[in-house]
Amino acid sequence: MGRLESDKSGVSRAEAEALDAADPLAGYRDEFVIADEALIYLDGNSLGRLPKASAERVKEVVEDDWGDHLIRSWTDRWFDLPSRIGDLIGTALLGTRTDEVIVGDSTTVALYKVLSACLDARPDRRTIVIEKGNFPTDRYIVEALATHRQLDIRWLEETGVNGVSTAQVEAALDSTVAVIVLSHVDYRSAALLDMAAITAAAHAAGALMVWDLCHSVGVVPIDLQADGVDAAVGCTYKYLNGGPGAPAFTYVRRERQAELKQPIWGWWSRQEMFDMAHGYQAVAGMKAWLTGTPSILSLAAVEPGVAMIAEAGVPTIRAKSTALTDLAVTLYDEWLAPLGFGLASPRAASARGSHVTVSRPDARDLTLRLIDKGVVPDFRQPDGVRLGFAPLTTRYVDVYDGLRALADLAG
Amino acid sequence: MGRLESDKSGVSRAEAEALDAADPLAGYRDEFVIADEALIYLDGNSLGRLPKASAERVKEVVEDDWGDHLIRSWTDRWFDLPSRIGDLIGTALLGTRTDEVIVGDSTTVALYKVLSACLDARPDRRTIVIEKGNFPTDRYIVEALATHRQLDIRWLEETGVNGVSTAQVEAALDSTVAVIVLSHVDYRSAALLDMAAITAAAHAAGALMVWDLCHSVGVVPIDLQADGVDAAVGCTYKYLNGGPGAPAFTYVRRERQAELKQPIWGWWSRQEMFDMAHGYQAVAGMKAWLTGTPSILSLAAVEPGVAMIAEAGVPTIRAKSTALTDLAVTLYDEWLAPLGFGLASPRAASARGSHVTVSRPDARDLTLRLIDKGVVPDFRQPDGVRLGFAPLTTRYVDVYDGLRALADLAG
Repeated sequence: MGRLESDKSGVSRAEAEALDAADPLAGYRDEFVIADEALIYLDGNSLGRLPKASAERVKEVVEDDWGDHLIRSWTDRWFDLPSRIGDLIGTALLGTRTDEVIVGDSTTVALYKVLSACLDARPDRRTIVIEKGNFPTDRYIVEALATHRQLDIRWLEETGVNGVSTAQVEAALDSTVAVIVLSHVDYRSAALLDMAAITAAAHAAGALMVWDLCHSVGVVPIDLQADGVDAAVGCTYKYLNGGPGAPAFTYVRRERQAELKQPIWGWWSRQEMFDMAHGYQAVAGMKAWLTGTPSILSLAAVEPGVAMIAEAGVPTIRAKSTALTDLAVTLYDEWLAPLGFGLASPRAASARGSHVTVSRPDARDLTLRLIDKGVVPDFRQPDGVRLGFAPLTTRYVDVYDGLRALADLAG
Repeated sequence: MGRLESDKSGVSRAEAEALDAADPLAGYRDEFVIADEALIYLDGNSLGRLPKASAERVKEVVEDDWGDHLIRSWTDRWFDLPSRIGDLIGTALLGTRTDEVIVGDSTTVALYKVLSACLDARPDRRTIVIEKGNFPTDRYIVEALATHRQLDIRWLEETGVNGVSTAQVEAALDSTVAVIVLSHVDYRSAALLDMAAITAAAHAAGALMVWDLCHSVGVVPIDLQADGVDAAVGCTYKYLNGGPGAPAFTYVRRERQAELKQPIWGWWSRQEMFDMAHGYQAVAGMKAWLTGTPSILSLAAVEPGVAMIAEAGVPTIRAKSTALTDLAVTLYDEWLAPLGFGLASPRAASARGSHVTVSRPDARDLTLRLIDKGVVPDFRQPDGVRLGFAPLTTRYVDVYDGLRALADLAG
């Protein structure tokens, strides 16, 4: 976006159109259902748009698999889905090997399992480290586990839009810390943390490191293997376009799979599940992280979106993502800062994910009025209008028109 | 079925056809997708058939709600689904009041939550009672909780096709028992337990009573309120026709809701979830039993099937169910017993649910060969061919033709 940033007289809509014309990902928009071309959708980081292939896939699963093939679909078509989609997410988007990722349960349940396993693996350590600004459900799970196990929570303070620093994490670590859980990209500020450095710091202190990838998977390069991450969870319904409440993925590093054991033993995680035998024994590999029967309609809908992200490639997606957020920051400076807005996201593209939050005390009201005008962002407590950019569907003109609409409303 | 039982010369197919012609529920079959009229589907107790209305509902949720209305569907259409469908299941099928049932998570996760809450509510009691023949995932969850909390499991012996007796339960109860969990209808034998008497026995010993309703909901009359049940869970994908892996329901008696607190705290179970505030505080009522974002495609698919069951009425469904299983037992006596099969289900209709299991050492092979011939039952360890009858879709001629096919194969 150097070109736009250098244009001191302001960005024109024609320039945004030119960026769209030159966008190597522009064609992907045609792969999605765009029911209302006039709608400016800046919430793909909360619920990603519907891939045409997913609508088709769900129809097949309902009509052919369920309606026609019935129970036989379990063995012929469905049993493998948690592993197959997990492997696709892992190898294409997370830098993992096969059999390190599985899909099932909600993100919150998945996080409960992962953190329980980490605490069980560090019985002599009584502290969990988490940031005060982490996503609520992550905090509540930590509170639940700390309460039930009578452990201590060490809360990292929120220190500004750039999020938790490695130094801040290092200062919080000592030999009492069992596990630290952080969001790779902050759900409000979009602050992008240094996964490699923070993970190394955790390990230097003998703690396990768990990452919540909900706001980074599919839009930010991730290399869990290179960064030595122990375990991670993430949503499939944001940038992966998996559909409302689509099941979460769980990653457990292969070298940790013998040590980390999930607590909710079910028939899906048992050796030879259809023997239905006495005495639980966990199956080998990531299937041990399943529990009950996965919700197939929601699970099957995940695959086409992931396949599309994998095909487009995260580096290309990241390049457009930073260009989109750069454009938003440029327009913020030009249009919103003079109207009393603050920038609640990092100014450097390298320090943020794929959304930009602007703040003003009337943010809630502004968000509602913006939605009425056909521009859909999200309100985030206490005063944020969160503008999310999904590179496969968001155009540069959407950023331009969306911020223009906000400026017009707020002026 | 007195008419058939008295016919010592054997049941004719014409008699089965006559029963279908007189069946008050016969019209419901037209409400389901029957892709292959020649298929004899006797596994609706594992995966219920696809209601036409559910196919339509899923299409709407995908195309209109997700594809068009996007994130706005959460507030306008989706947030209420776990409660709305829960209330429908509860009030129409389980004899509950409103806000005693919620839908979400897998049955196994739901059972983990319920049993965890029961154990937390009885901290001075160190024993969990469960039957050896209970469904595997129920046993594994009990094993997980006993292992993690260092509790004792008291296993009730399997005593035959009629299942656990009230006297057997009473003999196992003492002041150390925190909770007892049993299946209302056994997944293999179909043994139907005496919910009222066993629940009363549990309460007399100061224990909490949890029922697994997977194989009874929608096909057997249930009155959780009258029977004083503390908590229950159940599948929606069997007789409720909710679709593969559709989310489970959880019941917690209103008078126990202050005492029983589920352990997996998430943003969906917190007061004022979108305040995203610090410090977990459970919301009032059954929403406190939610955890993470529900899988909406799978959840939405549950409602049409439940509505149909509610409309047809469980008493009418039960009457047809017992007639179907009576016919199966009659044909077993006539055709299968002479071939060396055993009856692995109760002989009295009042003592069983809606499936009949017949046993022979080659049951696994017979099941596979039967499926090849277009008759779909289920194999159950060690030697059972399980024949499930879903009264809204199974015809008397299906029972007749299905058992005839089995006899022909096995003869």
